[in-house]
Amino acid sequence: MNENLEPLERLADMFRKLDGVGKRSAARYAYNILSFTPEEAAEFAEAILAAKTEIHRCSVCCNITTGEVCRYCASPERDHSLICVVEDPRAVMAIEKTRKFRGVYHVLHGTISPMRGILPDMLTIRELLARLSNTDEDNRVEEVIIATNPTVEGDATAMYLAKLIAPLGVKASRIANGVPIGAELEYADEVTLLRAMEGRYALN
Amino acid sequence: MNENLEPLERLADMFRKLDGVGKRSAARYAYNILSFTPEEAAEFAEAILAAKTEIHRCSVCCNITTGEVCRYCASPERDHSLICVVEDPRAVMAIEKTRKFRGVYHVLHGTISPMRGILPDMLTIRELLARLSNTDEDNRVEEVIIATNPTVEGDATAMYLAKLIAPLGVKASRIANGVPIGAELEYADEVTLLRAMEGRYALN
Repeated sequence: MNENLEPLERLADMFRKLDGVGKRSAARYAYNILSFTPEEAAEFAEAILAAKTEIHRCSVCCNITTGEVCRYCASPERDHSLICVVEDPRAVMAIEKTRKFRGVYHVLHGTISPMRGILPDMLTIRELLARLSNTDEDNRVEEVIIATNPTVEGDATAMYLAKLIAPLGVKASRIANGVPIGAELEYADEVTLLRAMEGRYALN
Repeated sequence: MNENLEPLERLADMFRKLDGVGKRSAARYAYNILSFTPEEAAEFAEAILAAKTEIHRCSVCCNITTGEVCRYCASPERDHSLICVVEDPRAVMAIEKTRKFRGVYHVLHGTISPMRGILPDMLTIRELLARLSNTDEDNRVEEVIIATNPTVEGDATAMYLAKLIAPLGVKASRIANGVPIGAELEYADEVTLLRAMEGRYALN
């Protein structure tokens, strides 16, 4: 970065705070801004502030929303007795794309990771347990599908949740692991393949 | 993108205007902003506006600067009779890293590209010719090194400039093409290798 262009350097530093943006990309993005029209730059700045002020967490499931409650929690067409627990709002969108899940969600906003200093009480686990403890007939939760990512941290978080959920008398399940549709076995890693074998289902 | 979160979508649209940012990265960046503190978000927005208002073009070489003239044009230690012509300010920084070039620069802010609608008068060619036409003894330019990128457009722009410079009695040269230091011939593309052969220099 050109050392005497402090405003450019400062902007690149902000871009570096975004996931997966390295030094070179940050510098490139900062340059790009210079070729924006003043109106575009103002619009960009305003969009950052607006996203930050207008979007917050759903008071029920902790998904992101502009309202008090998210569209899924607010929908009477959804099965509120079935909760799918995910790591982040992007996972909600991925599941919604299947157009098959008719339950509601609970967004943890992360996974337990002592290595990165993320402890259980920094996630929305307390809120999840509160939902599951609701014994009111109309709002009783029957089943929780834990759909955290199949990573070390996602799996550990799933196990941790399963232990907390068991005494509440709510069914808990974990989404299946296996070879993705359309993939070739040749290119699947051993762990995926092993999980696919273990999770085999009867055809007859 | 979650269709009912307009502020998030609008922010992702702004990120998509940056070079090399696709739909998925833009969505990820927009999410990242949500996890910023309000202070960080405000700082980011402010950095965009500051970069846009505080940085402009050097009145001599068109490089970017926060002052009236850039540090290179302002330096008495630089050889102002030697101009290196580059496509953008990032090329200036790349050349400065060699710590060997002691001349000054001229930044074109692009290359001629009729395909993308970029015509010669949209670059800073007029400003370059004005500098070369200066017959004042103290400010006479002796040589121009054309260091546009070795791409079809960079080469075409170099040829175009060479033709305009010739009648002014100023020496014009083009930086060499060849195999990069540390690379293996096996992995060099044919055109690079051909240019390296053509540009061979005597060892004895």
